[in-house]
Amino acid sequence: FFCRGIIQKSREEVASLQQCRPALTPVLAIVQVTDEVLKLNEDPKVHGLVLHLPTALLSGRVLNSISPEKDVQGVTDVNLGKLVRGDLEDSFAPPIARVVMELLEQHGQLGGGGKTALILGNSGALEVALQCLIQRRGMLVLTSGWKVASLQKQVIIAPQEVIGAAGCIALSCTAHSRAALCYVAEHEVDSTGGFWVIALPLPGPRNVVRSACRWLRQQRYRPWRLRSLTLQPLSPVPSDIEISRSQSPKAIELLAREVGLLPDEIEAHGKTKAKVRLSLLDRLKEQPDGKYVLVAGITPTPLGEGKSTVTVGLAQALTAHLKLNSFACLRQPSQGPTFGVKGGAAGGGYAQVIPMEEFNLHLTGDIHAITAANNLVAAAIDARVLHEATQSDKVCARFERLCSSRRLPPSPLQKLGIDKTEPGALTPEEIRSFVRLDIDPSGITWQRVVDTNDRFLRKITIGQASTEKGQARQAQFDIAVASEVMAILALTDGLRDMKERFSRMVVGSSRTGRPVTAQDLGVSGALAILMKDAIKPTLMQTLEGTPVFVHAGPFANIAHGNSSVLADKLALKLVGEEGFVVTEAGFGADIGMEKFFNIKCRTSGLRPNVVVLVATVRALKMHGGGPKNPLEAFFSRCSPWQNLQLVADGCSNLRKQIEIAQLFGVPVVVAVNVFRTDTEAEIDLVCRIARDSGASDAVACYHWSRGGRGCVELARAVRKAAQQPNHFRFLYDLQMPIVEKIRTIAQKVYGADDVEVSQEAQAKIDNYNEQGFGNLPICMAKTHLSLSHLPDWKGVPTGFLLPIRDVRASIGAGFIYPLVGTMSTMPGLPTRPCFYDMDLDPDTEQIAGLF
Amino acid sequence: FFCRGIIQKSREEVASLQQCRPALTPVLAIVQVTDEVLKLNEDPKVHGLVLHLPTALLSGRVLNSISPEKDVQGVTDVNLGKLVRGDLEDSFAPPIARVVMELLEQHGQLGGGGKTALILGNSGALEVALQCLIQRRGMLVLTSGWKVASLQKQVIIAPQEVIGAAGCIALSCTAHSRAALCYVAEHEVDSTGGFWVIALPLPGPRNVVRSACRWLRQQRYRPWRLRSLTLQPLSPVPSDIEISRSQSPKAIELLAREVGLLPDEIEAHGKTKAKVRLSLLDRLKEQPDGKYVLVAGITPTPLGEGKSTVTVGLAQALTAHLKLNSFACLRQPSQGPTFGVKGGAAGGGYAQVIPMEEFNLHLTGDIHAITAANNLVAAAIDARVLHEATQSDKVCARFERLCSSRRLPPSPLQKLGIDKTEPGALTPEEIRSFVRLDIDPSGITWQRVVDTNDRFLRKITIGQASTEKGQARQAQFDIAVASEVMAILALTDGLRDMKERFSRMVVGSSRTGRPVTAQDLGVSGALAILMKDAIKPTLMQTLEGTPVFVHAGPFANIAHGNSSVLADKLALKLVGEEGFVVTEAGFGADIGMEKFFNIKCRTSGLRPNVVVLVATVRALKMHGGGPKNPLEAFFSRCSPWQNLQLVADGCSNLRKQIEIAQLFGVPVVVAVNVFRTDTEAEIDLVCRIARDSGASDAVACYHWSRGGRGCVELARAVRKAAQQPNHFRFLYDLQMPIVEKIRTIAQKVYGADDVEVSQEAQAKIDNYNEQGFGNLPICMAKTHLSLSHLPDWKGVPTGFLLPIRDVRASIGAGFIYPLVGTMSTMPGLPTRPCFYDMDLDPDTEQIAGLF
Repeated sequence: FFCRGIIQKSREEVASLQQCRPALTPVLAIVQVTDEVLKLNEDPKVHGLVLHLPTALLSGRVLNSISPEKDVQGVTDVNLGKLVRGDLEDSFAPPIARVVMELLEQHGQLGGGGKTALILGNSGALEVALQCLIQRRGMLVLTSGWKVASLQKQVIIAPQEVIGAAGCIALSCTAHSRAALCYVAEHEVDSTGGFWVIALPLPGPRNVVRSACRWLRQQRYRPWRLRSLTLQPLSPVPSDIEISRSQSPKAIELLAREVGLLPDEIEAHGKTKAKVRLSLLDRLKEQPDGKYVLVAGITPTPLGEGKSTVTVGLAQALTAHLKLNSFACLRQPSQGPTFGVKGGAAGGGYAQVIPMEEFNLHLTGDIHAITAANNLVAAAIDARVLHEATQSDKVCARFERLCSSRRLPPSPLQKLGIDKTEPGALTPEEIRSFVRLDIDPSGITWQRVVDTNDRFLRKITIGQASTEKGQARQAQFDIAVASEVMAILALTDGLRDMKERFSRMVVGSSRTGRPVTAQDLGVSGALAILMKDAIKPTLMQTLEGTPVFVHAGPFANIAHGNSSVLADKLALKLVGEEGFVVTEAGFGADIGMEKFFNIKCRTSGLRPNVVVLVATVRALKMHGGGPKNPLEAFFSRCSPWQNLQLVADGCSNLRKQIEIAQLFGVPVVVAVNVFRTDTEAEIDLVCRIARDSGASDAVACYHWSRGGRGCVELARAVRKAAQQPNHFRFLYDLQMPIVEKIRTIAQKVYGADDVEVSQEAQAKIDNYNEQGFGNLPICMAKTHLSLSHLPDWKGVPTGFLLPIRDVRASIGAGFIYPLVGTMSTMPGLPTRPCFYDMDLDPDTEQIAGLF
Repeated sequence: FFCRGIIQKSREEVASLQQCRPALTPVLAIVQVTDEVLKLNEDPKVHGLVLHLPTALLSGRVLNSISPEKDVQGVTDVNLGKLVRGDLEDSFAPPIARVVMELLEQHGQLGGGGKTALILGNSGALEVALQCLIQRRGMLVLTSGWKVASLQKQVIIAPQEVIGAAGCIALSCTAHSRAALCYVAEHEVDSTGGFWVIALPLPGPRNVVRSACRWLRQQRYRPWRLRSLTLQPLSPVPSDIEISRSQSPKAIELLAREVGLLPDEIEAHGKTKAKVRLSLLDRLKEQPDGKYVLVAGITPTPLGEGKSTVTVGLAQALTAHLKLNSFACLRQPSQGPTFGVKGGAAGGGYAQVIPMEEFNLHLTGDIHAITAANNLVAAAIDARVLHEATQSDKVCARFERLCSSRRLPPSPLQKLGIDKTEPGALTPEEIRSFVRLDIDPSGITWQRVVDTNDRFLRKITIGQASTEKGQARQAQFDIAVASEVMAILALTDGLRDMKERFSRMVVGSSRTGRPVTAQDLGVSGALAILMKDAIKPTLMQTLEGTPVFVHAGPFANIAHGNSSVLADKLALKLVGEEGFVVTEAGFGADIGMEKFFNIKCRTSGLRPNVVVLVATVRALKMHGGGPKNPLEAFFSRCSPWQNLQLVADGCSNLRKQIEIAQLFGVPVVVAVNVFRTDTEAEIDLVCRIARDSGASDAVACYHWSRGGRGCVELARAVRKAAQQPNHFRFLYDLQMPIVEKIRTIAQKVYGADDVEVSQEAQAKIDNYNEQGFGNLPICMAKTHLSLSHLPDWKGVPTGFLLPIRDVRASIGAGFIYPLVGTMSTMPGLPTRPCFYDMDLDPDTEQIAGLF
C-alpha cells in the first residue's frame, strides 16, 4: 500500500533525472562478497552499495569498507556522524528513517511542539537517525534499548502513563536494525490515540536515486570550492627553492577532490603528485569545454622571457583571486638542463609549481619511460641487423626461432599482407619477407637517448665489441625529450591512438628504400606497455594551491614544443564552460604558437580563445639594438638604465608577433613581465604600442614578486578577451604541397621573401611524397632567437631567403620537420654546472642549490 | 572538586605509561590555524588535536579535517558514527561524556534498569554520546532539543510527572556543546530526588592519554590482523600474468595499515605500490627484530631453480596460513631482461608478487633514478676532461667560471684540505689543484648505463663530434643494475651514509695515479638529490595479500646480488620479534649466500637465523650427469623420466652447499621446489640425503601450483629451525690481506686447491693496498653455473686452481671484486625477444605476453 507510493515516487524521480541525462540509470549493487566492495566503490557506474550479509559478519570494519558516498543505507560511521551533526544535505540517512518520517508527516504526526516519540531499539543506525530527524522537528524523544516485549511488561502497559500525554508516537525497530537493512513501515493507531510504527525489511531504491542525483550534480559545471594557499611575499624575493619550501602544499587528494576528480580517477604518487586517469574524458564527455588560453612570447633572449611564470601567475590570479576555475598546463622539463645550466622550469618567484624539486626531478617517471621505450626500439634495430647479417645462410633457422612458440606473431604478418597463423602455411617467399627486414645500417634514423647533458654522446661509434661481429656503425645519443616517443605522448588523444602512432614510427629504411617501422620490429606493443602510465597527466599545484597539469615536454625545434593534448583536454573538462585552461608554447610566438595552432590544435580539434603574448623590457631593448649577450643582458637586470628609444625600436618585434597571432584570428593580450629594473615609463610605452598594434589589451604583470595578486589585471584582461568573437583559422591546408606549406610559414610568419630548398632537402621531400607522407603538417626546426634563421638578427628581419638545409619526418608524431640550420639535440655541461651547488641535507632531507 | 580527581587520574595513567616507555609524554596540540591540522595529523609526536575556533567556523569540513585517530574531542563524523554503532573500543567519545558517566557512577545513578535520563541539548556530539553511553547501561533516555528555559515552562515544572518516576537524571548540555569543547560537570539533587548535571568548559586531557596509549600499543609487537586474499588454484596452472590479473590486490594503504605502518610513513604510488619512509626505523627503534631467513639455492641451471617463488611462497604460507607476521624482501628486476629473454621476476604461478606487470616494469622508478645518477657522473667526467684540456692555457678563466657565484663550492675544497671560502685567498698552487683534476682518460673506470639489453653498446667510441675537439675515447655501456650506484643503494643504511658512499666512489685516476672520486667532481650532492626517493623501499603484496618489500637489485657477479639492507631492516621491525623476514640471495649459495653473509650482514650488522636452500630435481639430475643444455632440461619438464641414480649423484652439490651454509654456523632447511614431472621417489631421496647431510629439515614445496598452502610444511620447518641455537660467524676477517681473503673463499667455499693470481690482478691489489682499500670485503665475480670457474663443471668440482684474472673495486659500495673469467655486464636481445609477444589492449588496458 504505502510501499507502492514510495516506489512510484522513486520512478518519477528517475524519469526526471533521465530527462536531463538520457543515458543515466541509477545502479544499485547488492554485494555478497566483501572483496568486491572496494572494486564497486571505485566504479563510477555504481551509485549505491548494500551489503546483504548475516548480521554476525557485518562488523564495523566490513560496514565501513563501503565508501560513504555510495552508502545508501546510511550505515557507515561517516554517514551516521554526519546525521548526528545535522549535516543532512551531504549524508545518507537509512532509507527506512526517511520512509517513517514521510509516513508520520502524511498522518499529521509531526510538526507540533510538545509531541513525544518513543523509539525502541538497540541504538543502531536506524534509531539514531529517527531520533535526529524527529528531534529536529521540535519533538521530545524517548529512546530505549529494551525489547518490545519487556518494555510492554514494564512500562508500556499504558503508554499515556509513561509518556505523560496521549497520542504519542511509538517507533519499534526490530533486532534486524543492527544489520541496518531496509524496512517497510507498518503503522496502527491504538485505543489511546498512540501512533505505532513497526519497521520491516524493504528493498529501498530512494537513496540510490539520491546518490545518482549527486553524481549528476558532480558532472555539471560549478565554481570550485577550492581553498587557496595564502602567500606572504618577501622583498627581496628569496630563491625559488626557498619560496617553494616555505609553502606547505595541500594533500594532492584534497586538491583532486576540490577540482571535481573522483577518488578512483587519480593515482597518487606521494603526497604532492597524482596521475589522472583518462577515464575522466569519458565521464565528462557531455560537459562543455572551458576557455582555452595560450601563453606565447616575443622573440626571446637566451634566458627566456618568463612564459612559465606568466602561465602559473595567471592561473593563480584566476583561481585564487578572481575565484574562477582554472588549470595551468605545463611541460615536464628535461632533467639534463636542470643539472646543467638552466636550473628548474617550474616557474619562479611567487609564481611557481610546488614542490619545485618534485617538478624538476623525476616527477612521475614519464621521461624515464620515454627513455626506456626509445632505447628498446634502438636495441631492437641493431640486434635485428646483427641477427639477419649473421644468420643469412640459414634463414629457416631464424624463421624457426621467430616461430618457436609454434604460432606466428600476428602483427608483422598483417603488415606484410599475409593472413596466415600456421608457420607451415607460408610460402618460401613469404617466409623470407617475414624473417628479413633487410635494414640498411646507413639508413637508420632512430637514435638512442639519455636524459643527461652528455656532449660526448653527440657522435659515437657503436657495436665495436667482438660479439657484434664487425657490425660497428656511427650513431648518436639525443637528449630524451628529443625522442619521437615524446612528441607522440604530447600529441596523442588516448591509448589506442598512441599505440597506432608507435607502430607507424619510421626508424630507417630497408636496402630497397622501403621505410622500416616500429611495427616491423614487433616492438610497438611493448612500447605501449612501457608508456601505459606515462600517458596519464600529472596533477600538481601552484604556490597558491590552484591546480596544474604537468605532461610531456617535446623539443621546440625538431618537435612542436607544446605540453600534451591530453592534459589540455582533461583540464578543459574539469574547469567547465566558465573556467580557463592556460597552456604554454615553447620559444617565441613565431615558432611555439605557430606550431600550437597548425600542429597541436589541428591534431586535437581544440580551438583557442585567447593568446597571451609575454614581453619583457629587457628583450625589447635587445631587439631595439641593446646588448645581445645573455650575460650582459642578465647583468643589466641589476643596473637600471631607462632607454625609451631602445624600447620603442624593439617593439617592432612585439608588433610583428601580435600580427602573427592575428593571422590565426585569435585575440591577443600582451603581458609585460616586469623586472625590478624596468621603469614605469618603459612599461607604459610597451603597453601603449601593444594596444596600438591591435592587442585587445596590454598589462604589466608582477606575479614573480607578488604571486597571483600581481597578475590580477592580466587575468581580467584575459577574461574580457575570451568573450570576444573568435575567428580561428589554420595558416595552411594539409593538402598543399610540402614546399608550399614551408613557404607559407616562411613568408607569412617569419617575413622571409622566399625559401631556398637545398637539393638534399628536395630529394627527401620527393621521397616523402612518394611514401605517402605529403599531407602531414610542417614543424619548422629554426632558431628561436630571431624571426629569421640567423640568431643575431633581432627586431623584425626582412628581405631574406630562408634556407631549407634538410627535411626529416616524425611519422608517428605526424609531422615533417625541415631543418633551417643545424639543431643540437644534445646539450652539454658548462664549466660550472648547476650540480656543483646542489646538496641534500641528510637529516632534514632539504635540497639546496635548485633554483 | 571533582575536576581535580579526573586530572589526578590522568596523571597516574601517564605515570604508568611512562614506566613502560620512559621517553613518552602525551602531546596535545591545540590548533588556532586550520592549515596546521593536516600537518599535525601526520606528526607521530602529536597524540591529540583540539580545535579552538569560534563556533561559526567549526563547519563539518573543518571538524572532519582532524584525523579520527587524533580526534580526542570525539567531534569527527567517524568517531560519532563509531559511538553510535557501539564501537567504544576504537573511538573517542567527547571527554565530558565520560566525565558525566563517572560522576553518575560515583553517585550511584547508573546501573539500575527502569531509571530514566533526560538529556537536553541540540543533538550535538555530546548529547548523542551521553545517550549512547547511558542507554548501554539499560536505561530509558529522553532527549530534547529544547532550551532549558522553555522546557521548564512546558514540561519540567514537575519532572516526576513528565518522566513518570522520581529520581530521574536530567543532563543539560549548553549551547556550547555544538562546538564540542570540553566541559566540567556540576551536579545537584533537586527536591524531588532528580539528579541534575550541567556541563561546563573543561580542558580535558583524558582522551589524549588514551590516544597516547593506543599509539604505544601500536609500537608493540602484535600479530597482524591481516585479511589475506583467497586463492583458488587452477590446474593446469595458467600463465603468470593471467594469475596476477585474476586476483584483486588490496589497496596498498590498507595493507600498510594492516602491517602497522602509519599513514604518514607511506607514499602511495598508484593503488598497489607505496614507498615506505625511513623514519619508521626511528619510531620502532626499540622494537626487537624478527627472525631473519635467507633463501639461497644449489648451483642452478641457466633457467634458475625458483628461489623467488620459494621466497614468496614461504611468506604466503607463514602469514596467510600460519597467521605469523612475515615479509618477503625481493630484488627489483632489471627491465632489460624483461623484454629480452628472461621475462618477469615477480615469482611465478601461485607464488608471486602482484600486480606482476608493475613489479616487472618501472615499479617506483628506482632503477631510472640510478640510471640518471650514474650517467650524470659519466657526463661530468668527460665534460671535465674536455674543459680542462681545452682551457689549459687559461686556468684562471676556468677558475673564474668555477667561482662565478663569488663564493667557492665547499666540498671539493675540503677534499683538497683547503679551508678557505674567498676566491682571492687561494694561492696559485691551491687554485691549480682546485681547478684541475687532471683525469687520465685511459684511467676512467666509470661507465654509462642503460636499462635495456643493448649489445651494440658493449664497446663504443665516444666524443667523436667536432665539438668535443678530438677527445674521443673508448667506453662502454653496462646494464643499469650493474652500476655501483645500485650496489650502494642495496648496502646503505640511510641518507647520510648513502651520500658519503657516493662521495667516495672512485671513477678513475689522475695522471699522477691519485684516485678521482665523485666528490672531486662536485657531483655527490646532486646524486643524493636524484636518489632521495629511491632510497625508500617499495611495499607491494603477494598473491595472498601478504606484504612484500621490493628494493634494489645489484648484479650478483660484479656486485653482491642481494636486496637492500634497508628493506630487510624495516621489515624486521614491522614483523616484530615473533615474525619472519624472508629475503633472497642471487645465484647459488656459493655466491649469493656467501656474499649475503660476508658483505651484506657485515655491513648491516643483522644476523641470519635460518638458511632455506632451494633445490630442484631437474638441477640435481644435471649435477648427476644429466642434460646441461637449458632447453633440453626445460623440455624435460614435459617428459617425465625418473632416474634415481642421477638424482643421488647430483645431491653431492646439495650436500656441498649445505656444508657451506654450516661454515657460517646457520641452520639449513632444504626446500625441494617440485615440478610436475618429479616423482615421489626422487623427492623423497633428495629429502633423505639432505637430512643426512646435516640439514635441519628437508621438505617438498608445492607453492607454484598451490600457493602458500603448498608451502606450509616448509614454513613449519623454518619456524622450528629458527628456534635452534645460532652460531653465526664470518668466514674471514677484514684485516686479512686481500689475496688471503680471496684464497679463503676459493678453498672453503668453492673447494679449489688454491688461487692463481695474474700479474695484472696482483698489480691492482698492490695499488688498492697502497690507496688504503685493503680492508674491504671481497665480492667474487664468478660464474654461477658451477662451484668452479668453469660453467660446465657440474656436481662438486675438486682439484682445481681458481684463476684471478683481474681485480676491481667499488669503493663507494665498499668491496673489492676479483674477476674469475669474463663477466658480461650488458646482455643482448635474442632472435625472438620477449617483446615480440607483448601487447596492451587499449580498451581494457590489459597486458599480454608478460610471463
